Formats: sequence, structure tokens, C-alpha cells
Amino acid sequence: MMNSPLILITNDDGVDARGIIELAECLKPLGELVVFAPDGPRSGMSGAITSSIPITFSLLEEYDGMRVYSCTGTPVDCVKLAVNNVLDRKPDLLVSGINQGGNMSVCVHYSGTLGAAAEGCIFGIPSLGVSLTDYNGKASFGACRRLGLSVAQLILEEGLPKGTYLNLNVPNVSRVKGLRVCRQSGARFVNEYMTSEDAGGETVYWLTGSLYNEQPDDPEDDTLALDEGYASLVPCRIDVTDYEYMQQLRRMTETITIT
Amino acid sequence: MMNSPLILITNDDGVDARGIIELAECLKPLGELVVFAPDGPRSGMSGAITSSIPITFSLLEEYDGMRVYSCTGTPVDCVKLAVNNVLDRKPDLLVSGINQGGNMSVCVHYSGTLGAAAEGCIFGIPSLGVSLTDYNGKASFGACRRLGLSVAQLILEEGLPKGTYLNLNVPNVSRVKGLRVCRQSGARFVNEYMTSEDAGGETVYWLTGSLYNEQPDDPEDDTLALDEGYASLVPCRIDVTDYEYMQQLRRMTETITIT
Repeated sequence: MMNSPLILITNDDGVDARGIIELAECLKPLGELVVFAPDGPRSGMSGAITSSIPITFSLLEEYDGMRVYSCTGTPVDCVKLAVNNVLDRKPDLLVSGINQGGNMSVCVHYSGTLGAAAEGCIFGIPSLGVSLTDYNGKASFGACRRLGLSVAQLILEEGLPKGTYLNLNVPNVSRVKGLRVCRQSGARFVNEYMTSEDAGGETVYWLTGSLYNEQPDDPEDDTLALDEGYASLVPCRIDVTDYEYMQQLRRMTETITIT
Repeated sequence: MMNSPLILITNDDGVDARGIIELAECLKPLGELVVFAPDGPRSGMSGAITSSIPITFSLLEEYDGMRVYSCTGTPVDCVKLAVNNVLDRKPDLLVSGINQGGNMSVCVHYSGTLGAAAEGCIFGIPSLGVSLTDYNGKASFGACRRLGLSVAQLILEEGLPKGTYLNLNVPNVSRVKGLRVCRQSGARFVNEYMTSEDAGGETVYWLTGSLYNEQPDDPEDDTLALDEGYASLVPCRIDVTDYEYMQQLRRMTETITIT
């Protein structure tokens, strides 16, 4: 008899976040779930790893055959530690989320949610990050759960190319218009800092900002798709090499000598 | 009269690290330098950003017309804050490093050095990360300085494609054989955790590991180039979209409905 699929669930909002509970609930029909997530918020941790101090983890609870672990590390640490030292076999699927807050465009580079999905992909695990563009504690997860489940199921059935993971974003609208396969938008953040004073009168800087989309008319742009009420699904590569530029760079650097 | 080029220098080993001092010294002939770097080690911080607490910075010193700032944030925070709130114009070049420790292969996803270079690229600044595969405090920076200077000069003269930054790694060998334009290796880490006990007898996990290269025979592989005594130069993209897979993913997801 085949094992039922093993699904590793993690996030960057922490093991107690509403999004990861919603995610675990909706993926339950697909297989054996293990939640292994940070012990508190790790938003914006990107692909950060903890190397200067040790990390540790504990089994928080076990119910309906699902184990829930809490870890002192980053989202990427969670994936590394779960796969290397906790799970008895390689997961068939990793799903990270549901993040509250969109991870479109360059957010893929800052997001701990996507950092964890990328790490799963590095391990050769078909991996998916799921985000809802709504920070509200009372956000409706309905459409996001249905789409997350559908995409997760599809990945289990069809697999993903080696070195590719998926970034699913679902807009905060009353009626999601559909799912659109997109490319990473070129939108970037503007007005990034708010200043205030600390108790000693020193100026401090709070990261804030809003996304500015320079090319707002490409229907494949993930930021645009979300603005138009569609969920966006971007396939992302671990290999970031700019292959097109390699030959030109080779010619340009030909004259460089070492001594 | 044209302004002399403005060069922003940062790193992830901290403003006092030897590598950033070596870097600033070697780039001095190229223009006006501003060092804006973390106030201590931020290795493995990837593209992490600080959003839950405010950050701040201070001018540490000013000499030879060079300002040196120390910042409480991550490498990416340093780039954001310097460009948004400190510098009076956009830098003509960003160089991050010199990191002590190689950033080949998947390290591009974990490295704070490369996180900062990617952030410069997101701002539209031609950006370069420089790493030396040697953790030793007495490491020889000679070849790394010469190559870093040559590549930085080339970038100032020729520019870089929009959305592309460079990842330069220099091997720890007595005689570097040359500079090789490479692609990001598919090598990945194995044996990632060492366990020990904390003072209370609990098991703790230290991140360690070594790179295992599955395809060791491709001369364009950056890990192989370094192993063979060459410096590697990989052009890296901010846009991680897997364009080749989009069409197939579109067909696969056609049947997904929202309700």
C-alpha cells in the first residue's frame, strides 16, 4: 500500500497565526500533514538562515494525526530542520502560508513565506507559497483556501519542474474573478520610510511604503492581476542566472587579468 | 563638470569587518564612496527587511572625503535607508562585500551580501556582490581586491542590464587562474545540522553543512569554477519568473475554478 502524501506546512507569521491554521484545515484531505513553523512572527525574513546561534524546536501538539512543531528559527531554518532532522521521509509537498499580506512582485525577495517555499524547492520538494492580500485579523480566507487546495492538489498530481516553485496570491475582494498565471511584476516600493522619534529624541525609521507599478498594462503582471481582482500564480526559479546576458558579459570581461 | 561617480558600499559582516575596509580602500580610485553598513554581523540575512521595529543609523566617521555610516538594520535595510533617506543622489554603483565566505550556488539565496546587491538592483543601481571563499581573519584579499576593482570599473563604464546584478566569488588559492563567467551551480548543502546540548540539557541544532555538487563537470558551474581555482562571475536576475513553464502551468490550471 502506498503511503499517503506527506505535506510539510510552514509560514513566516508564526505557528499560532490564523493563516497557518486555515491552511492546515484546508489541506487535511490531501494527506498526512506536519506543521513545522516559527515560534513567532518572522515576516520579511526572506531566505534568512540562523548560523551564529543554535536553534531548537518542540512538539506543541498532535491531533487528528497531525503533528505541530514550534521552532526558534527562521522560515528557512524550519524547512531545513524539519526535512533534515525531524521527518522520516522527504515530503511530497511543502505549502507555506497562508500569509496575511500580498507577496507579489519584488516581495518574493523579502518574504519569509516565499523563502520557505524556495527552500523546499532547493530540497527537491514540490513547493508552494500562499498569500492573501489582507492584513485584517477578520479577513475572509474562503477563496484563498479553495485556491490553495486546488493548486496543492494539482502539484501532488502533476509535480513541478525541478528548481521551480509556485507563488500564489489571492486578492482581498468579495468575489475573486479567477486564477491567472502571471510573471513577477516589475513594481517596486516607493515612500519606504516613516520617521518618528524614540524616547531619547533620536530619529528612528519605520519601514512602510507602497508598490508603484511602472508597467501597469501587462495582463501577465502579478500586481496588475491582483489589482484587477484575479488571484495570481507565478512559477519561480531557484536558479537566478541571467543566461541571456552571460555571453555579453563574457566578452566584456575578456580583458580582465588577475595580476 | 560631471560629478565623480557615487559608490555605495555595504556588506553583511558589519561596518567594522575587514572585508568592507579592504573593499573601500580598493574602490577609492573610482569615485566618491559612502559606506553604509550594519552595525554588526548579519551573515545569512538574505533579503531580510526589518518591519516590526524601527531602525536607525549614525555617522561613524568621515575621512578622505568618505563617509562611514553604521545602521541597526539588515543589509537590505541599509541599502533602502541609504538610498531613500541619506544620499543626495542615486548611486552610480553599489558594491557589497567583501564577504569572507563563498556565495556560490544556492548561497545567493541565503547571503546578506547578495541580498544587498539585489536590493541595489531593485533600485536601478548597477550592483555587485564580492565574496572571498576564506573565513580566516588573516586571509589574503589581494586577488579579490584586484578583481573587485576591475569588475566595478567595468560596470561603471558599461552599465548592467536593468534587473541584473553580478555575483563575484574569488577562491582562496595562492594563484587565481582567471575570471570565469558562470551560471549559478545546482550544488546544494548536505549534512546541515550539528547537534549539541544547551546548559539545561536540551538538544540544540547548529547550522553547518557542506556543498554537494550533483553536476560537477560543467565548466560554467560557479562552484566548479571556484574548485578549479577560477574566480566566478554570475549575472543574476531580480525577476525569478520561470517563463518557460508559464504556458504549461496555464494549461494545467485551466480547470481550476474559484467557487
